[in-house]
Amino acid sequence: MLDRLQRVRVVLVATSHPGNIGSAARAMRTMGLSSLWLVAPRQFPSPEATAMASGADAILESARVVATLDEALVGCVRVFGATPKPRRVPMPEQSPREAAPALLAAAGTHEVAVVFGTERIGLTNAEIERCHVAVNIPTDAAYNSLNLAQAVQVLCYELRLAALAGEGAGVPVPALPTPQFTDDEPPADATRMEAFFGHLERTLGAVDFFKGRPAYTIMRRLRRIFLRAQLSTREVLILRGILADVERAARLAGIATSTPDRSQGPLD
Amino acid sequence: MLDRLQRVRVVLVATSHPGNIGSAARAMRTMGLSSLWLVAPRQFPSPEATAMASGADAILESARVVATLDEALVGCVRVFGATPKPRRVPMPEQSPREAAPALLAAAGTHEVAVVFGTERIGLTNAEIERCHVAVNIPTDAAYNSLNLAQAVQVLCYELRLAALAGEGAGVPVPALPTPQFTDDEPPADATRMEAFFGHLERTLGAVDFFKGRPAYTIMRRLRRIFLRAQLSTREVLILRGILADVERAARLAGIATSTPDRSQGPLD
Repeated sequence: MLDRLQRVRVVLVATSHPGNIGSAARAMRTMGLSSLWLVAPRQFPSPEATAMASGADAILESARVVATLDEALVGCVRVFGATPKPRRVPMPEQSPREAAPALLAAAGTHEVAVVFGTERIGLTNAEIERCHVAVNIPTDAAYNSLNLAQAVQVLCYELRLAALAGEGAGVPVPALPTPQFTDDEPPADATRMEAFFGHLERTLGAVDFFKGRPAYTIMRRLRRIFLRAQLSTREVLILRGILADVERAARLAGIATSTPDRSQGPLD
Repeated sequence: MLDRLQRVRVVLVATSHPGNIGSAARAMRTMGLSSLWLVAPRQFPSPEATAMASGADAILESARVVATLDEALVGCVRVFGATPKPRRVPMPEQSPREAAPALLAAAGTHEVAVVFGTERIGLTNAEIERCHVAVNIPTDAAYNSLNLAQAVQVLCYELRLAALAGEGAGVPVPALPTPQFTDDEPPADATRMEAFFGHLERTLGAVDFFKGRPAYTIMRRLRRIFLRAQLSTREVLILRGILADVERAARLAGIATSTPDRSQGPLD
């Protein structure tokens, strides 16, 4: 499992102080990580970074410098964003201890990433929205100002513990956290989901997506996607709003639809 | 936690033998469950069912008889399907021990269901596709023919154990299992997801879904849905195929789109 740490990218976005980059590299090395990506750092390379890296120069030398977060995430199948405090953006949240095994498990076959924002404001909304999960390091409520390199240290430490715990064991990939439903936004029940799937199938027919192919096969796959996503009632409303606009477009377009093959699986 | 067992529906679909319905009711009662739903039973009520219920008559008396599975699932936010063997339908699968805490946790505030198919063929594809997870009871490979009421017993037993384990403890809702990615169908990486979100936003613009509202807010919600779903590369291709057909319809329709408000959140 320790080799998986090589597939965890530490992505630092728009870091202001080069010394923090050096300290982060050092923190990574102590925990056995090595893949450092720098998104538009204010100053890099820099003697200050090298000084703070203190023996982790190799990580700085092999660090990838890119212009955008998207470039740093190419190839990553799971992206966790470290945020200093709860976001206004509704996001699944995990503690570092919960997040580390999940991230490491996903690193079994693919690259994954932990993203850290700037020293001053952390990750922007647009950045955090590229993440599957927001990782909150629990800090004292009265003083939650964690230094960037310290945050990197905590995350790398938890990743290492998770790697050690998993040594020699086949660790299943933990699922992403489920959405937190509220009274305002309860989960969609089976009835709403069926109504949504019916609406989806009609709409796909209206834009001639099936093109004579069996509707059954494609609907089966779409069912998997949307059931997996655990939609709230409000999310279903939004998606059905989209379908309504698509139906309107199809009507205006006067699309001639082929008859979809409605045959079902052999057991039905 | 034991009170949550009252919110777990045992749904028996098209049961052939009324005796099995009685035995299932008995199995339920021993484990503290009481909500029995019968979808188009061949024969019910029946003296044979009452005889086999042996003291669990109250469950039979309050059993709800409905014509379709959809009716039995009204109000259920999580639906697990018991299947005797791996399905050709690609489904997340769990053992009863894994499934029970997940189901029970979801039963904290809403109704949930475990669905059992007919004695002869189990659940049909169309039925299993209404489920979030397929629950496989591990059986001897050489003899996997588990009786319906025994299957109900095993599931109810695991549900009870999970309820007892959770007594007095705040149990977080476990997530659904993640999709099993394969070499044929690897997970979509961040780049593909961003390309998909870009395509989705353009398409929504083309059918005038934004109607002058901020694209940002709606895209943020849609991001949450599709990131949560953990799409494979192939699923992204399917969804983009849909978007391409919708764009074609919008072009043919010559929809005049309002200019979406592209302002972003305050931090960006």
